Amino acid sequence: ILSMRAWWSVLLCCFVVAVQCNNITAYAGLVDTIFTGALNDEVGYQRLGEMCNTFGSRLSGSESLEQAIDWTVQQLKTDGFDSVTTEDVSVPNWVRRNEKLTMNHPRQKHMDLLALGGSIGTGTEGITADVLVVSGYDELIRNASLAQGKIVVFNAPFVSYGSTVTYRTNGAVEAAKAGAVASLTRSITPFSLYTPHTGVMYYEDGVSQIPSAAITIEDANLLQSLQDNGVTPQLTLFLDCETLPNAQSRNVIAELKGSVLPDEFIVIGGHIDSWDVGSGAHDDAGGILQTWEAMRLLASLDMRPRRTIRLVFWTAEENGGSGADTYFANHIEELGNNTFCFETDSGTFTPVGFSFAGTEAAKAEISQIAELMSKHVQLTVTSGGAGADVSPLTSAGVPGVGLNVAADGVGTDTYFWYHHTRADTFDHVDLSEFKLCVGTVASLAYVVADMESNLPK
Amino acid sequence: ILSMRAWWSVLLCCFVVAVQCNNITAYAGLVDTIFTGALNDEVGYQRLGEMCNTFGSRLSGSESLEQAIDWTVQQLKTDGFDSVTTEDVSVPNWVRRNEKLTMNHPRQKHMDLLALGGSIGTGTEGITADVLVVSGYDELIRNASLAQGKIVVFNAPFVSYGSTVTYRTNGAVEAAKAGAVASLTRSITPFSLYTPHTGVMYYEDGVSQIPSAAITIEDANLLQSLQDNGVTPQLTLFLDCETLPNAQSRNVIAELKGSVLPDEFIVIGGHIDSWDVGSGAHDDAGGILQTWEAMRLLASLDMRPRRTIRLVFWTAEENGGSGADTYFANHIEELGNNTFCFETDSGTFTPVGFSFAGTEAAKAEISQIAELMSKHVQLTVTSGGAGADVSPLTSAGVPGVGLNVAADGVGTDTYFWYHHTRADTFDHVDLSEFKLCVGTVASLAYVVADMESNLPK
Repeated sequence: ILSMRAWWSVLLCCFVVAVQCNNITAYAGLVDTIFTGALNDEVGYQRLGEMCNTFGSRLSGSESLEQAIDWTVQQLKTDGFDSVTTEDVSVPNWVRRNEKLTMNHPRQKHMDLLALGGSIGTGTEGITADVLVVSGYDELIRNASLAQGKIVVFNAPFVSYGSTVTYRTNGAVEAAKAGAVASLTRSITPFSLYTPHTGVMYYEDGVSQIPSAAITIEDANLLQSLQDNGVTPQLTLFLDCETLPNAQSRNVIAELKGSVLPDEFIVIGGHIDSWDVGSGAHDDAGGILQTWEAMRLLASLDMRPRRTIRLVFWTAEENGGSGADTYFANHIEELGNNTFCFETDSGTFTPVGFSFAGTEAAKAEISQIAELMSKHVQLTVTSGGAGADVSPLTSAGVPGVGLNVAADGVGTDTYFWYHHTRADTFDHVDLSEFKLCVGTVASLAYVVADMESNLPK
Repeated sequence: ILSMRAWWSVLLCCFVVAVQCNNITAYAGLVDTIFTGALNDEVGYQRLGEMCNTFGSRLSGSESLEQAIDWTVQQLKTDGFDSVTTEDVSVPNWVRRNEKLTMNHPRQKHMDLLALGGSIGTGTEGITADVLVVSGYDELIRNASLAQGKIVVFNAPFVSYGSTVTYRTNGAVEAAKAGAVASLTRSITPFSLYTPHTGVMYYEDGVSQIPSAAITIEDANLLQSLQDNGVTPQLTLFLDCETLPNAQSRNVIAELKGSVLPDEFIVIGGHIDSWDVGSGAHDDAGGILQTWEAMRLLASLDMRPRRTIRLVFWTAEENGGSGADTYFANHIEELGNNTFCFETDSGTFTPVGFSFAGTEAAKAEISQIAELMSKHVQLTVTSGGAGADVSPLTSAGVPGVGLNVAADGVGTDTYFWYHHTRADTFDHVDLSEFKLCVGTVASLAYVVADMESNLPK
């Protein structure tokens, strides 16, 4: 009879055999077929243009978001998927009305700005105060005594989105702790053509709420230069913006049923909302259309994988992620059947890699699949989380991937030139780059949904 | 005795000898000295920052222009030049007050805009009208019957500044001829982050004057897409701007007297005015400071060439060039002593060449001088005019050069990302690129002002 040790060896062998059953290289021909289809297809790109140009921006709580969702559902129903549904989500309803920023001293100058999402307004008189420019929290703390009664300007150079965005999300709280009357943040971007960038900001219980807005790199640098030369600029900030009671929105869900294991499913998608400026083309209408077109392409090629592909367009990602949270809560019973999630929310440029959340063994398989696409795209798989909307899923153990892209294949930071600005428009999305994204999404989704064994959790 | 033919041969030989006296290669060491000085110098760059950040924009007629001129004269007087003077110039006085553009149909959307310089206003009610988008004059003429009562939008892609700028300068006239009530021009730039570009426009006697403004590439493309999909957008345009009676401004002139031939002189300079947005850092405070610092550097190195170097900062280049015209009229008697002119008005990036106006023989000598700088900058000499402010001089036969530059040495079009925008600010001028410009200007100016024979006219 076998010892316990021997039994373990047998079990381990079975596991290894199971993993090896995923003969990924066998999918090379199908991946080529998918890419050929993607490169000859313009339906998704045309829909992206129609969505962006017809509805414009899509902030949670806005009529334009709900109109875009209606249109999306209507279009999805023409695509021959097995189901198209929505689920209700209670979403924040912050509204921007008028806003204005003027430098009064040492000279009169209009400054462009964008209130940050969630900010309170200034009242009709606005706030007139001297400026304290700081390069970050350290300098604010060192100069806290100078911040009292001032408008604090965070002039922090862009290092990476993840590390610099804190001045947008938490700047108002830290400035308020030092006694500031308002907080202005240098826009979170590596490059500007006098381009303000909005985005969400948060208040903290027990800390007074002060108005908060983003200014351009150019004006942040101007204020810095003046201060460095011994001048204390004076500004008048006027923000008419407000958080209204929550509104109702919807997640959109469509499925292409699996041919063998229809109850097991992978999730692909992006978020359907955007900030209230531009038309959210890179962030994230492009992500929606990439994944949507990927699933439509598979359906049109009659490539129905063994497992179900579920397309999810989360709502209200920008304003805190209530779409993703509601989806997770609504579908927690199915979590065991959700074998993979794949989000695209980093713009629509040339695919350069996958950002992965999960086990090393699963990452190795994703790398093998990435390798199958090397004729078309050069993909590097990195660890680092799959994205905001799938983070409840990946936190619960579902292996996840986010698509990484770069303009002309160079410089992933280029996305942040457009992110949350009036320049995030359809005409900044390139057709050939879009096609490569569709091919990449469809290939990864198909192989993972079809291969013999699930990715190891 | 010599025949006439033989006499001519002797004269021609003398001429050839004279030209060959310009032993340009002998200046190699001095050019290295100049570049070493330029690369170790930050005075001009600091002055550029002080000028841009203190005074901001400098449109003809504005108080900020005259304050900047006062400051410039004051600073010049500290530099030890032989003379610093100004000459009065009558300049246009167009003022921008408020402006607003809204799309009413098919949805509400704010559109950024900049009235074009010289445009009439719309009256307090603004102009509400349907849009006709055209790609250029050909399409306007083909669709002239559709333009009646419309706001014509010129959505002409940027080909080159010289070829595309006609839609800014003359679009209103051509639209008015077709019966349009206003003219909007896609900003003259190869790239936009929702960045409108202003600039001068002209009316024509006998053609009705209609308001004219620039919109962003993004909005021009949006209007185009809507029209292409069968939608006729409706806009409301409001411009409060006006041409007031001419104002008084000044050209600034400073000289470093020649050591041998003080009455012969070369002219170097740029224009001191700018558009009324941004701070005119690339256009053309940078040009002024390049040439100013070049002359200061030569003075500080005690490198006084044989001929005089005259620094000229022309006023009101942007609004029609009355500074250059006045300078030409005031100095016409000296024209025979003006042996060379050198303008920099294409931005402050890495020098990539000289744009030359004059004889082929003179161009060949300029190319030889450019070659001396090849350790530091790679310069190509092209024919094509030396620039707007020296064009009265070059038209009168003075050999002239304009400095060509490119961001990171690549892409001369990058200048037009900033040109006439709120993004034309000091922080977009790189110190190391500025230094290379100073070295290039100083080297060319020194050699031409010092060499044995004048450039052949």
